[in-house]
Amino acid sequence: MKFARFTVESAHHTGILEGDTIREIKGDPFTNWTYTGNVFLSSQVKFLAPLEPNQIVGIGANYVAKVEEIPEELPAIPVFFFKPVSSVIGPEEDIIIPEGIEQVKFESELAIVIGREAKNVPESEVLDYVFGYTVGNDVTAPQFFRQDGHWTIGKAFDTFTPLGPVIETELDPFAVKVEARLNGTEKQNSATDLMIIPIRKMISYLSSVMTLKPGDVILTGSPLGAEMVHAGDVIECDIKEIGTLKNTFVTARESASVV
Amino acid sequence: MKFARFTVESAHHTGILEGDTIREIKGDPFTNWTYTGNVFLSSQVKFLAPLEPNQIVGIGANYVAKVEEIPEELPAIPVFFFKPVSSVIGPEEDIIIPEGIEQVKFESELAIVIGREAKNVPESEVLDYVFGYTVGNDVTAPQFFRQDGHWTIGKAFDTFTPLGPVIETELDPFAVKVEARLNGTEKQNSATDLMIIPIRKMISYLSSVMTLKPGDVILTGSPLGAEMVHAGDVIECDIKEIGTLKNTFVTARESASVV
Repeated sequence: MKFARFTVESAHHTGILEGDTIREIKGDPFTNWTYTGNVFLSSQVKFLAPLEPNQIVGIGANYVAKVEEIPEELPAIPVFFFKPVSSVIGPEEDIIIPEGIEQVKFESELAIVIGREAKNVPESEVLDYVFGYTVGNDVTAPQFFRQDGHWTIGKAFDTFTPLGPVIETELDPFAVKVEARLNGTEKQNSATDLMIIPIRKMISYLSSVMTLKPGDVILTGSPLGAEMVHAGDVIECDIKEIGTLKNTFVTARESASVV
Repeated sequence: MKFARFTVESAHHTGILEGDTIREIKGDPFTNWTYTGNVFLSSQVKFLAPLEPNQIVGIGANYVAKVEEIPEELPAIPVFFFKPVSSVIGPEEDIIIPEGIEQVKFESELAIVIGREAKNVPESEVLDYVFGYTVGNDVTAPQFFRQDGHWTIGKAFDTFTPLGPVIETELDPFAVKVEARLNGTEKQNSATDLMIIPIRKMISYLSSVMTLKPGDVILTGSPLGAEMVHAGDVIECDIKEIGTLKNTFVTARESASVV
């Protein structure tokens, strides 16, 4: 099922996307919901980020070019980072390039949505704790990375975490490709078996450190091919089985002038 | 006013601490609340963390030993990091030393609680966006820091962010001392004018990056004197005008055996 959040004439709704219609639901998608009976045409709604994450954790530099390049010995402590929930936007919203810089980087990613509290879960069971999957864009301003390795600020700006368009609950995460098109030209296109830290290990490791909660989002890393982009560029992050997450980059000044 | 969250016979309450009594309130402490008329003796309740943070951001290595040591030129990008909200515990709860290591570090800190949405706020106005202040312990396992500077995992373990005992809304943050006592012996005791990035600059800078929201907690850094500690050690983080945040370190095995 494809869970969506959307607005119609500025009222917020939640629903299930089926083809080009959305059947509205009420209740909590994670636990207990029912259909309201209302149906909308997807072309007539504005999609929002498909959830308001509880928190967001990402993993750095997690893809290789070919399966043979995956190192035999995985890092003891993978490069994880947190992104603030204030950085989330939905499809079609503008990504604001911070004042003082001209470029930022897109990173198309498979995003895992946790559905049940998970602590010390073995790799064999972690997928039972996943609610579903969406597409994420881990926008990054490496100009704000510190030389000594601290990435926090460079990934924390408002609008730096587009998510959407839907949460697909029936996805096989090992049988998808993570793609990105910049102004219509393919820049990223990798199967998820090119991850260095694979999905099960990633979730299990995180659950050994922290209690994962419903609504936690794990950004699983971006394939090779991410690039720096400018204002005016249009990025489409895409996982065919989930949908296309399209956003346009703008300057802070353009963004302010809209308001 | 000193806002507290507490339990009595496992029921959750919120209230205002006045001397040794707590006057219960209902509603949202950030926006609109009223007294219920119920009063509790503080000795008969169990204090919880005084809020469930929206998110937690910390600053690294932010204190000097003497005011004269504050560098004239501040870093362009301070060392900020996020801690997961899942790491929060309250007063008197156990801090669990992760499996596989013997020691962790305590760090007593002044913790700012944001009360109003804040974006691009100048230094002169940032304190208008602060709801109040509590005491935080930024527990850290440097064994899980990566050589290349990524601290995320080393600060993310469950129980690694004790907060409390109350949120003091009338504090002058420039007139307090941040203290820590380990097994009764003073280890940290610094005035907040020994911060390298001072409070107003810290909040203003963060608000230029991300929209701060009610319930966001900013850990403002720890004075010199933090130490590695073992299971059995008792840490009291203290800001006299707020209260004492006392926790005991235990091993993961001890923790599990309690359940």
